[in-house]
Amino acid sequence: MIKVGLIGYGYWGPNLVRNFNGIPECKIKYVCDSREDRLKLLKQTYPFIDTVTDANLVIEDKEIDAVVIATPVFTHYKFAKAALENGKHVLLEKPMTASVKEAMDLMKMAEDQSKVLMVDHTFLYTGAVQTMKKIINRGEMGKIKYFDSTRINLGLFQPDVNVLWDLAPHDISILNFLVNETPYSVNATGVSHTNNNIENIAYLTVNYQSDFIAHFNCSWTSPVKIRMMLLGGNEKMLVYNDLEPSEKIRIYDTGYSYKSDEERKKILVDYRAGDVYIPKVEMKEALSSMANDFVNCIQSGSKPVADMKSGIDVVKVLEAAQLSIKQNGKEIKLDIWN
Amino acid sequence: MIKVGLIGYGYWGPNLVRNFNGIPECKIKYVCDSREDRLKLLKQTYPFIDTVTDANLVIEDKEIDAVVIATPVFTHYKFAKAALENGKHVLLEKPMTASVKEAMDLMKMAEDQSKVLMVDHTFLYTGAVQTMKKIINRGEMGKIKYFDSTRINLGLFQPDVNVLWDLAPHDISILNFLVNETPYSVNATGVSHTNNNIENIAYLTVNYQSDFIAHFNCSWTSPVKIRMMLLGGNEKMLVYNDLEPSEKIRIYDTGYSYKSDEERKKILVDYRAGDVYIPKVEMKEALSSMANDFVNCIQSGSKPVADMKSGIDVVKVLEAAQLSIKQNGKEIKLDIWN
Amino acid sequence: MIKVGLIGYGYWGPNLVRNFNGIPECKIKYVCDSREDRLKLLKQTYPFIDTVTDANLVIEDKEIDAVVIATPVFTHYKFAKAALENGKHVLLEKPMTASVKEAMDLMKMAEDQSKVLMVDHTFLYTGAVQTMKKIINRGEMGKIKYFDSTRINLGLFQPDVNVLWDLAPHDISILNFLVNETPYSVNATGVSHTNNNIENIAYLTVNYQSDFIAHFNCSWTSPVKIRMMLLGGNEKMLVYNDLEPSEKIRIYDTGYSYKSDEERKKILVDYRAGDVYIPKVEMKEALSSMANDFVNCIQSGSKPVADMKSGIDVVKVLEAAQLSIKQNGKEIKLDIWN
Amino acid sequence: MIKVGLIGYGYWGPNLVRNFNGIPECKIKYVCDSREDRLKLLKQTYPFIDTVTDANLVIEDKEIDAVVIATPVFTHYKFAKAALENGKHVLLEKPMTASVKEAMDLMKMAEDQSKVLMVDHTFLYTGAVQTMKKIINRGEMGKIKYFDSTRINLGLFQPDVNVLWDLAPHDISILNFLVNETPYSVNATGVSHTNNNIENIAYLTVNYQSDFIAHFNCSWTSPVKIRMMLLGGNEKMLVYNDLEPSEKIRIYDTGYSYKSDEERKKILVDYRAGDVYIPKVEMKEALSSMANDFVNCIQSGSKPVADMKSGIDVVKVLEAAQLSIKQNGKEIKLDIWN
Repeated sequence: MIKVGLIGYGYWGPNLVRNFNGIPECKIKYVCDSREDRLKLLKQTYPFIDTVTDANLVIEDKEIDAVVIATPVFTHYKFAKAALENGKHVLLEKPMTASVKEAMDLMKMAEDQSKVLMVDHTFLYTGAVQTMKKIINRGEMGKIKYFDSTRINLGLFQPDVNVLWDLAPHDISILNFLVNETPYSVNATGVSHTNNNIENIAYLTVNYQSDFIAHFNCSWTSPVKIRMMLLGGNEKMLVYNDLEPSEKIRIYDTGYSYKSDEERKKILVDYRAGDVYIPKVEMKEALSSMANDFVNCIQSGSKPVADMKSGIDVVKVLEAAQLSIKQNGKEIKLDIWN
Repeated sequence: MIKVGLIGYGYWGPNLVRNFNGIPECKIKYVCDSREDRLKLLKQTYPFIDTVTDANLVIEDKEIDAVVIATPVFTHYKFAKAALENGKHVLLEKPMTASVKEAMDLMKMAEDQSKVLMVDHTFLYTGAVQTMKKIINRGEMGKIKYFDSTRINLGLFQPDVNVLWDLAPHDISILNFLVNETPYSVNATGVSHTNNNIENIAYLTVNYQSDFIAHFNCSWTSPVKIRMMLLGGNEKMLVYNDLEPSEKIRIYDTGYSYKSDEERKKILVDYRAGDVYIPKVEMKEALSSMANDFVNCIQSGSKPVADMKSGIDVVKVLEAAQLSIKQNGKEIKLDIWN
Repeated sequence: MIKVGLIGYGYWGPNLVRNFNGIPECKIKYVCDSREDRLKLLKQTYPFIDTVTDANLVIEDKEIDAVVIATPVFTHYKFAKAALENGKHVLLEKPMTASVKEAMDLMKMAEDQSKVLMVDHTFLYTGAVQTMKKIINRGEMGKIKYFDSTRINLGLFQPDVNVLWDLAPHDISILNFLVNETPYSVNATGVSHTNNNIENIAYLTVNYQSDFIAHFNCSWTSPVKIRMMLLGGNEKMLVYNDLEPSEKIRIYDTGYSYKSDEERKKILVDYRAGDVYIPKVEMKEALSSMANDFVNCIQSGSKPVADMKSGIDVVKVLEAAQLSIKQNGKEIKLDIWN
Repeated sequence: MIKVGLIGYGYWGPNLVRNFNGIPECKIKYVCDSREDRLKLLKQTYPFIDTVTDANLVIEDKEIDAVVIATPVFTHYKFAKAALENGKHVLLEKPMTASVKEAMDLMKMAEDQSKVLMVDHTFLYTGAVQTMKKIINRGEMGKIKYFDSTRINLGLFQPDVNVLWDLAPHDISILNFLVNETPYSVNATGVSHTNNNIENIAYLTVNYQSDFIAHFNCSWTSPVKIRMMLLGGNEKMLVYNDLEPSEKIRIYDTGYSYKSDEERKKILVDYRAGDVYIPKVEMKEALSSMANDFVNCIQSGSKPVADMKSGIDVVKVLEAAQLSIKQNGKEIKLDIWN
């Protein structure tokens, strides 16, 4: 039986508790939050879970095997460090930390301690992303040439991090999961419509040594909610629309090559060159798979899908993007952390 | 009776002929193209129009009042210059010229000669754009804060200009038409998937002195066709989807302000804060209005909606974007041409 | 404190328990089901609720004020009758009973006993239906001329009732709620693709003395899920798409009148005659409002929105429709029960 | 060279002229219409076609090989009879005639004269319908179980025929083309919102000896335009949405069988049971294929896709539907014409 303590019972907290509570090999001993009203809310549904306001009680409890940290990102490092020092396995909400340096420190500690350090990149566990991974691995899309993500809605302006730190971790983690090439550099632009200089709209290009390119459009200020991703191979292309209730993935039998003009003209006339195929996607709750992966990795010593490397790689892009925005879109190379 | 000669009978040619032919005060005397098969095609429908392969015959004919130039962009300057020198009014297909310098030269000539020099920014004449202009001018959207345009499809790769020169003129001309502030600088990134170094995917941010921002996503390599524009004011927001057959404009009663946290949380819970309104949009063919504007301006001496200033402003952004792409996304200020 | 017993813990049971459990003036004392595994499931989340397999224990318990009956429809009469005889208030799942006679019997008993007898026509409590009611009552649609409902999906074939009894109660209750005129007769057709002679596809027309008409298309055998309703007035028309996450109601400024041919031709050319307006719709859970209505009516003696009259009127149409199907679509008049 | 005369230059006339004019083996000698303004309109684009107001001049001209009749349906019989008597091949706009008797008379005459008698069921020539036919013929849908068509919009109220005669011929001809079984009977209901007793909304069920069923929903009074068809087999199902610009056909890998309850419950949980496949559909103009089929059949003596049998079968359903509506939805058997 893995005994778990959860630190931070905000928006995502109830989902974490519900899913960890559903794992037979796992028991949530504590939920910790500084806000008494949040703890009261928890008690209504889960009277058998202990509530505390002091995170140290969780971290220092010898009975606790693992700590789940779902607090604001600037506190991730502090809590994760303490937990690792106390020999706990750690699951961090995304993004992993507020800086690459913090993430690297934690990785070293986890490696030294042989503890699981994992990041809740939930989307990697969705049926949609798992299906895309399989399609790409089968090679049927050919060479992947671009990745274009839009994640915009009318969202709560975060007071401490910009819209990229809030929304892009999902898409960057998917990008890194699907595409093997290491990013080379980033350019980012954005704007803050408040007086706190925190961008609520931002655009991010990730460049590679090859002719692959990735782009992210993130906004808290859109009247429509869009969560769409285009992924283009030279043999097939794919659209992932996360808002579709069941038809999330569409595969277009649409390649492009550059032979004679006559051939290219044909593509122009009819904008879809071939059939479209919509694979059935597994509908299981992704957060449940993520929680199970964490528990299984603790028990078996295996490596989680959303491992610490995956967490660091996302933070690298985010930190570089922020540098780029503050330097008027200047290209920032990602080897600065090597 | 305005006598018109058309130079260039490519993809857009039949539409131009059909519309100018429908104007009672106007007569198309010549169509010129170097490709005999294109001229033969014209003759089938319009046996009464003279066809020539030498543009000089059109430009130097004393009977001709106006020349419509629908050739590849790198030839625009040459033909427009010759036409203005021969005292003709000139309509240029978009984009106006291959460089800001060329556009400025032509503008000076047209001003010196008191001739109409106009650019076919057709979209400015659509019911949708005219409706948006009225909505903005009525002030009901509040202060405009952002403009976000996506124009992607599976398109013919142009051999001489990149995807921004091909697709973005539409959206940049709309941006400049709707928003009064002068752009300050641009950042652009992109990628070429062919060996000719001409980008088939490109992303462009246009920055302003205020906190307004504009972004353009252009691609010839998308399996889906999207022509969508978001325009956000602090009181209302608007989505323009050009692919909708009749419901092209949606106005969202969705403002955002930054008072207490509690208020902002409400926005988070329900992602649409108010009603949506879809105004009826005039369905008249935009190209017909454009052609009529050209003829009327020749007759009346008034200024067209898509005037030469509008043409130059688009070329400024395009040329700066190209500089930015070739310098790895570096910010390029637009005052370099002042 | 109203003490409630629930009989039947099937598909809808957890939703009923969750919502009644959330009402402070109400306490669920029992949940009854003949299937032990269903009761075990309940106990996991609600250990404090008593579970029984014998409905009589619930119905005869003096402490119980009200009984909620969520069993198969052919058992509704038996349980409701017993509950009313024991002086309980009764909430029945839809459809109210398996016949008009049963429904009328229950109504008489409830009236004699002065007990609340209510039917869970949940949709009457949705923000969408409430919004439609307000729009119609304001008179802005003019005279209502037709109602056209499609409710199809790939659904579980019910073993005891046909697709109309399963799906149409929602739409018939909405029709009766929105439109004041009393139905005059019905015609229905359908087909059974199984060997039990129970229709899995059925079509129902409800006729009126005036020129108003209503039509229902119901299927368990559609590859796509559609829940759409058109409601046409002679001044405005309305589309209610229940699958839209937030934009459920669209009001079209589209009237029709029959003056000169010229006017009518204009309508033909552009198929939408005016603006479209999408009102913001309240997103509160309808089942919660329904449960509160039941409890409030018990306490206050007032009449619920989904009262027993509403229940009977639905059963009249269903029973007549079944007669019509079995007589090859013959018109069945609804005054047979007067 | 086949010489053709067109009688009736209304809404559909310009499309007929354009397409017959594009066939090299065919020459349009006359266009006939009683309205001088329509003929003047034709002359603007086709100065070389003779215009007449008297149909007899066309029908009796010895040079004319074939007559295309695009007049109101109640005149079809008169013109077609005269044309066949004069030894012409005849193409009739849909619906073929105003009654089954008229259609049968014409068929007999055409057979006696060995002339082509064809009906312009244009939809049979579309890429979408041809693709559906191939899919069904390959047997991959299993046994076809139902056909459900909706064709509604805000349309011109016809002064002489009801909405079924106007809109349903398309869908009935498609049904008969795709499904081999002969219809057994019909039930229809409808309503007229004008004082001329001509239905502007109508619902039609076509019954078969087997458990196959077809249903048609037609309206001139809908604020939204829908042209959708569901076709369900027991192995796969298909949706044909004619308003989709390119993705007109969607094939759902969704069968249904009735084994254990457990299996059926699985279908309930996830409403789509399998993958979806969108085949590329030929985009060629259907009217051009239809016109070519007419000309080819005249030349070769072969049987057109939309032959006279297809025309009669549609009129049978329409006439029976009208009888049913006027008898309050009574079942009308189709063997009354055998």
